[in-house]
Amino acid sequence: MTKTGINAVPGFRANGVHCGLKRKRRDMALIVSDRVTSAAAVFTQNAFAAAPVLLSKRRIKAGDVRAIVVNSGNANACTGTRGAKDAEEMTVLAARALGLKPEQVMVASTGIIGRPLDMEKIRTGITECAGGLDTATGDEVAEAITTTDAYTKQAERSVEVEGRTFHVAGIAKGAGMIHPNMATMLGFVVTDAPVAEDHFQALLAETVDETFNMISVDGDESTNDMVAAFANGAEGGALVAPGTPEWHALSDAFRAVCTDLAKMIPTDGEGATHLIEVVVEGAASVADARAAARAVSSSNLVKAAVYGGDPNWGRIVAALGQTEVAIDPASVSITFDGAEGGATVLDKGEPTGALKDAARAFATKEMRIRIDLASGDASATAWGSDLTEAYVRFNSAYST
Amino acid sequence: MTKTGINAVPGFRANGVHCGLKRKRRDMALIVSDRVTSAAAVFTQNAFAAAPVLLSKRRIKAGDVRAIVVNSGNANACTGTRGAKDAEEMTVLAARALGLKPEQVMVASTGIIGRPLDMEKIRTGITECAGGLDTATGDEVAEAITTTDAYTKQAERSVEVEGRTFHVAGIAKGAGMIHPNMATMLGFVVTDAPVAEDHFQALLAETVDETFNMISVDGDESTNDMVAAFANGAEGGALVAPGTPEWHALSDAFRAVCTDLAKMIPTDGEGATHLIEVVVEGAASVADARAAARAVSSSNLVKAAVYGGDPNWGRIVAALGQTEVAIDPASVSITFDGAEGGATVLDKGEPTGALKDAARAFATKEMRIRIDLASGDASATAWGSDLTEAYVRFNSAYST
Repeated sequence: MTKTGINAVPGFRANGVHCGLKRKRRDMALIVSDRVTSAAAVFTQNAFAAAPVLLSKRRIKAGDVRAIVVNSGNANACTGTRGAKDAEEMTVLAARALGLKPEQVMVASTGIIGRPLDMEKIRTGITECAGGLDTATGDEVAEAITTTDAYTKQAERSVEVEGRTFHVAGIAKGAGMIHPNMATMLGFVVTDAPVAEDHFQALLAETVDETFNMISVDGDESTNDMVAAFANGAEGGALVAPGTPEWHALSDAFRAVCTDLAKMIPTDGEGATHLIEVVVEGAASVADARAAARAVSSSNLVKAAVYGGDPNWGRIVAALGQTEVAIDPASVSITFDGAEGGATVLDKGEPTGALKDAARAFATKEMRIRIDLASGDASATAWGSDLTEAYVRFNSAYST
Repeated sequence: MTKTGINAVPGFRANGVHCGLKRKRRDMALIVSDRVTSAAAVFTQNAFAAAPVLLSKRRIKAGDVRAIVVNSGNANACTGTRGAKDAEEMTVLAARALGLKPEQVMVASTGIIGRPLDMEKIRTGITECAGGLDTATGDEVAEAITTTDAYTKQAERSVEVEGRTFHVAGIAKGAGMIHPNMATMLGFVVTDAPVAEDHFQALLAETVDETFNMISVDGDESTNDMVAAFANGAEGGALVAPGTPEWHALSDAFRAVCTDLAKMIPTDGEGATHLIEVVVEGAASVADARAAARAVSSSNLVKAAVYGGDPNWGRIVAALGQTEVAIDPASVSITFDGAEGGATVLDKGEPTGALKDAARAFATKEMRIRIDLASGDASATAWGSDLTEAYVRFNSAYST
């Protein structure tokens, strides 16, 4: 059988099984490197960070991580001292099953908030999961970390550079919250490239800022958000260091995988009918460009207008104008773009009236809002889903 | 005829007429003090602040304002140099009709963004409006500043203190945005109390921070938001100074009028089925309390849960945890309250499981979420509307 997804990256083995935390879909995953690996991670800033987040932070800091155990169906958040013990036990069980020390295992959970984990199911699940490593398809592993996602999220790239080949593969789960209290964004990316841990952490942090941190479904950051990455060096060559052609090729592939995964999340946003790409150019700084792009991509009114197929640039300027971003209203241009057409609706502060042409941008699911601030050279891209009646239905109709 | 609303406050005359900017409803208002008045105002921070906002800011600064002319149906925003000229002309026309200097008149506009004002209609409207001052009911004046509001918003109080009587009356319009590009919150409050202008500006700023600035319909601050207040001293006594019994009585009445008006806005939020009052107690500072209350009252996920009648405290902790507010997760308590019942769902970090009782809070349109951070003595209250399918329908279905 041809290996797929994470199992196709040399030196990594993964599995996803069903242990009963969710009704039907797989809900327990393991990812392990067969060798010492550089591990990097970024975590939610939420003050109510869940037990698995707090534990994994410590594990990453200690510096010997090479595996992660993940459950879906229960977030193990707001679960007090019992939650902390349960998270710890998950790493102990996984370590035992994998022949590692608990300190070598990190943990992630996603699902309902405020309910204790069913540890009996967790124990069975971890044992079963460890027993079938390397046999699962990429899709089966990806399914095990989903909650209300409509589809699994996987991405991969291989890159050849200077006679070497690096593989990068990742999975993610959406910030969908159809069921109450489910609100996690998780991403896991592995590569066989050899990279020093501090360089790898810097690469992950920088890439997450440009990808996962630039998406918005509903503007809420969860108690369990986490993106973790492993670089195990199974490729076998010398360490890939910043500034080299290998580094550029590898970091491009890494960014491409993260971008693919990040965009899948709002594409799979609850009830979403459009993926909105907001490109801000001509900003005075990258921070300004990001803030402006995020303000537009997360505005309810912009999102509702996109759903309605309305090139409503008044809502875009209102969203832009609320930020701390340096803006000269008389310089701003706004364009709606899509595969079937589009038009500039505001040209250096002057309305063009081309609303009919602009509305063609909404004919396809993926569409773009381009904003030129004409205040500098910096740019950024953000992605959001539109706001639909189905989103509200999903997020209100399911009661605890 | 008994005078009502602003016309019932001694020394003020107001009118509201229809000049054709909106299809049917009144769309032009004038409010004027017959005598020198202390004028105070707070304006939108939006970088795309509309022409009337920019002009009124200058007029307030110059310090001789005693009238305001307001049109609805067109925001005169993103209208370039022509917009600035039109706003100026509105004050010139109003001043001429009222026997004042243009410098004594401020201007506010609300409605569609990016279209030039129909000045012919404006001219007729101002003349007609000035001709019938003092004849309109409070409701007719209030109607003239609405756009998509389902109902007019008026509030008034009279207060007797130390043998004196002060009257306070105000009108507001909602931040409803059913029609594209309409997004303004306007509030105008008048009193016959004699107050020095700097004290009155401080009172307005402080009161707005606790009232109009604590409401959220969809989180967007418009290009035209403005709250203005006049204190003309027609009551006739000595200046009311801070620290006196008169000041306390007057400022309580002033705050009560602003609170009433502010709460009417999310109550009339598009498609809203609940007015959500979020009370944060035990915060380390007032800034923390306000930030926490606003984070919860403006969270899409909390708003959708309220619509669904779901006491979903997981979404509340997620919203709280995203703020910069000092929070000890193990100390936080959350209670849902309504006229028909309610319950504490999180007690010092421990889930109580009382979700069925908590759900009774949703039986009435007005409901409360009480959050005790147990980190200090400061408190704040915020108000929001719930997020419904009707909101999305209204904000997507009307295309330009």
